[in-house]
Amino acid sequence: MPSALILIADGTEEMEFTITYDTLVRAGIVCTSAYVPAQDAPEADKTALSFATCSRGLKIVPDTLFSPQAAVPEHYDLLVVPGGAKGAQTIAQSVPVQHLVRRYLQEEKYVGMICAGSLAAQTSKLPRQPLTSHPSVQAELEKDFEYSDAPVVVSGKLVTRCVRARGLRLLMSTARKLTPPTVPPPRDPAPLLRVLCTAVVQDWRTGTAFPFALTLVELLCGAAARAEVAGPMVFPAGTFA
Amino acid sequence: MPSALILIADGTEEMEFTITYDTLVRAGIVCTSAYVPAQDAPEADKTALSFATCSRGLKIVPDTLFSPQAAVPEHYDLLVVPGGAKGAQTIAQSVPVQHLVRRYLQEEKYVGMICAGSLAAQTSKLPRQPLTSHPSVQAELEKDFEYSDAPVVVSGKLVTRCVRARGLRLLMSTARKLTPPTVPPPRDPAPLLRVLCTAVVQDWRTGTAFPFALTLVELLCGAAARAEVAGPMVFPAGTFA
Repeated sequence: MPSALILIADGTEEMEFTITYDTLVRAGIVCTSAYVPAQDAPEADKTALSFATCSRGLKIVPDTLFSPQAAVPEHYDLLVVPGGAKGAQTIAQSVPVQHLVRRYLQEEKYVGMICAGSLAAQTSKLPRQPLTSHPSVQAELEKDFEYSDAPVVVSGKLVTRCVRARGLRLLMSTARKLTPPTVPPPRDPAPLLRVLCTAVVQDWRTGTAFPFALTLVELLCGAAARAEVAGPMVFPAGTFA
Repeated sequence: MPSALILIADGTEEMEFTITYDTLVRAGIVCTSAYVPAQDAPEADKTALSFATCSRGLKIVPDTLFSPQAAVPEHYDLLVVPGGAKGAQTIAQSVPVQHLVRRYLQEEKYVGMICAGSLAAQTSKLPRQPLTSHPSVQAELEKDFEYSDAPVVVSGKLVTRCVRARGLRLLMSTARKLTPPTVPPPRDPAPLLRVLCTAVVQDWRTGTAFPFALTLVELLCGAAARAEVAGPMVFPAGTFA
């Protein structure tokens, strides 16, 4: 059975973490979450397992404390770095994590990074390659990688995920139609946002971690497994049984 | 500032819980999660706050233990019952929860139920009204409610959410085209599922808790707030600033 190690820290985006964990478990992938304490965390947080306080205040109990000795690619098929600005920074700045990111790829194991989690590719000094991320870290990453606008980028064993893709392009083209290019963007964004809301919600899937998690399922378990996991999440289980 | 009480129990579906909590917090709604212990839980779980083990093993620390005295509609604008078969059953079978569901509606406060969470409408003996749910409890609920296939049903102050809607209809019509009605469904569902996978993923939004959470945001905070929350979740914050 394939296995995945999903890192978590204070400030991790709870939806990105939870959707990835839940979707991989549904695919039969054995998931372990490991807490990476911040460098300036109290000593107690580095030695005793408590919980991670996520970006919107949700508190998640990790399965284990991150241990460089236990997190090795001999034990897992996939290493995941979720987003959430503060959590991604903590994880990306961890020297043992950087070392493991390189080792997973050397051992031909998968490494997944969501949104701001892609920072770990840079701090791990991975070679220049295609990659995507949350727009907040795009400028930083463009210097060292072939930055892509695709929703999910698979570069060898490195899988990265942004949060905009089609949605942003749709928004920009609509905004351009609504606002002549010589006029500055509106000060109060609410009315324009309201106009675009329907389009946003219709395009919602590009804003979630689902396609990322399903891509990982497909890479680890094959296309049939992806379909089997995707099916019951929308359709009642047993429809085809 | 509007406030919401989101119930959680062992077996709650972690994505439904997390997406609702996270999305409401993004809208500025003060969220409190309260743990409802199972009737047969060890006494320690009923008096000391630990964590909820969700349907796929994720462990979430609730903000508080459920207390019938603290959970009253005088303190919150919205009560949410998430899905996940086992968790929904625990919550729906709690007599104090049933009492509160009725009191919230009497006081014209909102009550949201996701998927199997709609069972709480039945155990609370709510009057016959439009409602939807996870298909696994549809047969049970059809006896007592005007069962609907809409993705989100708003009936007065009761908001319910199913997980199929358009996706299921799409699947059934495609399946009908692929399989003559006199032929039994295929024994191995994988090939058919693979064919339908693209459609499923394109239709993914109907399978998530996002439209539910955004409907609650709109009801509590207005359409502008919904747009403001939906925007940055897909688009980079500050695009219009």
